[in-house]
Amino acid sequence: MSDRLNSYLKENSDRFLEELISFLKIPSISTDSNSKADVDRCAHWLKDHLFNIGITNVQLEETPGHPIIYAEYLIDASKPTILLYGHYDVQPPEPLDLWDSPPFEPTIRDGKIFARGATDDKGQLFTHIKALEAHLAVEGTLPVNVKILIEGEEEVGSPNLEPWIKDNKEKLSCDAVIISDSSMYAPGIPSIMYGLRGLAYFEIEVEGPSHDLHSGLYGGAVPNPINVLSSIISSFHDADGRIAIDGFYDTVRDLVESEREEWKNLPFRDSEFLAETGASELAGEPGFTTLERVWARPTLDCNGIIGGFTGEGAKTVLPSLAKAKFSCRLVPDQDPLEIEKLVIAHIEKVCPSSVKFKVGQHHGGKPVITDKTGIAVDAAKRALKKSWDAEPVFIRGGGSIPVVATFAEVLKTPTVLVGLGLNDDRLHSPNEKFDLENFYKGIQTSAYFWNEV
Amino acid sequence: MSDRLNSYLKENSDRFLEELISFLKIPSISTDSNSKADVDRCAHWLKDHLFNIGITNVQLEETPGHPIIYAEYLIDASKPTILLYGHYDVQPPEPLDLWDSPPFEPTIRDGKIFARGATDDKGQLFTHIKALEAHLAVEGTLPVNVKILIEGEEEVGSPNLEPWIKDNKEKLSCDAVIISDSSMYAPGIPSIMYGLRGLAYFEIEVEGPSHDLHSGLYGGAVPNPINVLSSIISSFHDADGRIAIDGFYDTVRDLVESEREEWKNLPFRDSEFLAETGASELAGEPGFTTLERVWARPTLDCNGIIGGFTGEGAKTVLPSLAKAKFSCRLVPDQDPLEIEKLVIAHIEKVCPSSVKFKVGQHHGGKPVITDKTGIAVDAAKRALKKSWDAEPVFIRGGGSIPVVATFAEVLKTPTVLVGLGLNDDRLHSPNEKFDLENFYKGIQTSAYFWNEV
Repeated sequence: MSDRLNSYLKENSDRFLEELISFLKIPSISTDSNSKADVDRCAHWLKDHLFNIGITNVQLEETPGHPIIYAEYLIDASKPTILLYGHYDVQPPEPLDLWDSPPFEPTIRDGKIFARGATDDKGQLFTHIKALEAHLAVEGTLPVNVKILIEGEEEVGSPNLEPWIKDNKEKLSCDAVIISDSSMYAPGIPSIMYGLRGLAYFEIEVEGPSHDLHSGLYGGAVPNPINVLSSIISSFHDADGRIAIDGFYDTVRDLVESEREEWKNLPFRDSEFLAETGASELAGEPGFTTLERVWARPTLDCNGIIGGFTGEGAKTVLPSLAKAKFSCRLVPDQDPLEIEKLVIAHIEKVCPSSVKFKVGQHHGGKPVITDKTGIAVDAAKRALKKSWDAEPVFIRGGGSIPVVATFAEVLKTPTVLVGLGLNDDRLHSPNEKFDLENFYKGIQTSAYFWNEV
Repeated sequence: MSDRLNSYLKENSDRFLEELISFLKIPSISTDSNSKADVDRCAHWLKDHLFNIGITNVQLEETPGHPIIYAEYLIDASKPTILLYGHYDVQPPEPLDLWDSPPFEPTIRDGKIFARGATDDKGQLFTHIKALEAHLAVEGTLPVNVKILIEGEEEVGSPNLEPWIKDNKEKLSCDAVIISDSSMYAPGIPSIMYGLRGLAYFEIEVEGPSHDLHSGLYGGAVPNPINVLSSIISSFHDADGRIAIDGFYDTVRDLVESEREEWKNLPFRDSEFLAETGASELAGEPGFTTLERVWARPTLDCNGIIGGFTGEGAKTVLPSLAKAKFSCRLVPDQDPLEIEKLVIAHIEKVCPSSVKFKVGQHHGGKPVITDKTGIAVDAAKRALKKSWDAEPVFIRGGGSIPVVATFAEVLKTPTVLVGLGLNDDRLHSPNEKFDLENFYKGIQTSAYFWNEV
């Protein structure tokens, strides 16, 4: 990389951080219908920002949900074309009382920036935008053709992205996609992620009596929806911790022995992982290591539950309703639609006829495994090695980026996942953060990447 | 009863209702620490009211919780002394959106008054106060010695009442206690209740990770507190609906055959009971009828549950905490303290070591069976028969009035439970009501009662 590029990055580093702070201040919570105006404001901020750094061909595309930002900077049809994907929406910040500083007032402590979206995905996305800015400012152009696709609905399952990609297949055609929306394996170990879990997300509501009853006058003779819902949830696992839904594991691709060996060679300690979680003990499916459980085995976790009286003190109510949200992380070759059917069939089987139940689904996503070679993967490897001065490792991830499967299916394009976050970034949790070292090294990595491709 | 007494009741009926409305307007929610001022205001309102009808010896007794009202009107040591017990506190009104009219704006529709506390217990208690007023206004005195004990903590398990009764044993000495804080067997069937269930009330909190985690990055390897709590709750019952806690039924007194026969002769239809609940089907312990399940068998019902993300939309969180409230209705000769030990031992047995849990107890109450004869029971029978023109039946109840056991143990005094509510009064639920017919016939019954004793 040219000295001028490096100097530019250095000279402008304070401004980059100020701009990131402005970006993080906007509470673009896509799950919350009350935040619609803020999500919109964030989309406009981003569009203007891209325009101002010199990517003048930028559009804000309306959808039935939140807007998509699409931009392109095409220099030469004979050169490779890379699509950069990211998202500007964030998770809800609740529970608010557990944040040490307010989620939408970005605060710097110990070389880390704390805010909702710091790592997921505003901070990581912004590294690429700043690298593109540097190329444009210093060279007056980019080294490759670049297309940029940034959505505002990743945290709600991207319901409008796939249709939009299908409708704009030709416009989006490219040689590879790059995404930074995940983590490095560990601090100082640059990583390329080649596998992601999928997702199937459910809500269930159980109704016993049609209204809340006095537990003394009716208790013992009327079905209790919380007790019933608890039994349904309990029936999802067997006593050993395996998922007890008929057919659930039928399409799970077994880990290959070489993969298990590679993962065993990664520096990993259960004790450190346990310390990150703060739990008393780890727990999961028998016969698998922690990395295997998280990267290559499916799950069923409750995400939320509510029913009856939850205020202070004692209320002797036999409630009418109980509701839960739960979701399955899926692995190749499980299909979210097929899993939805199995889960619903299971509930129909175990739910007693004395209650009514409703099951709804949120948008899910397919699990994916991508190639470990190709122009973008190879360029990312070289760029990571240069900026971090260490050999990148290939890893899988436990999270879901459903659009990766869409890019493979619709655009027939491979994706390279260059995670810049760290595992202790607390994305989706209170005190989400992004290390400033990762922010600045990420910008440098991206600047190299555009050259290396 | 004298014509003058009857005329007084008739002439003042509109005012009685207006006063009841004033009483019901005060949101004396004892479970809610934010309502302390209103609970206090209600106690003062009641004290002033008793003074104004002529019971001038009335005290407001402070306790560590809400005040107790104690009053007496003693005419002649050779005559019987009856203690009237009631409570001026009410249940929380939530969920507010299910009320057809606001819970603390009493509204009359179809000959019923709708408000929180209408039947439990302000409306029922007020019938006795108005009957005493009538005697004092018409005769200038009462036919027997009357003591009045009204507490403000019944809905939180009366934590300060038992110590107060023990400290004031001599002052409270009496021949019988009368309480109207329950229901008639059915409209038009006056009833005396001779059995009540007891209560043991628990809160449980399960902690998995120490903070909310991303369900993708950690899911599969970390204990999920909602899934674990659901399994604990599920383990409380076996597949048939019996409680599966070791020793839980050991001290349950079997129903005697004559009692079962008597209950079979009461007019009762499962279909009507089911219609009251609005559930799809009834459900409960095998081998018992609905009345037996509700009156004479113990239960374990969840009263509330909460954990993780319960807002709108999907959040893929692996939560740190899940909490539930649950309670057991107990029958003779189960002891609440003994049941608490069994429940905690059960949880310790089934809860996996990968999570931490805490169990707390709210104040419970002992189950009770009282005599079917005695001066107060006999007088109540005659009073009920006169005012309702029908033979009273002896019934048991599924609810709990723990003070009945305290009166028996501390004062060695029998209690007569003259329920004036109806089973569809929705106490503890939205749209609680009290039929005005029951209000006015209740006043008449009470007026007869004081004469008959």
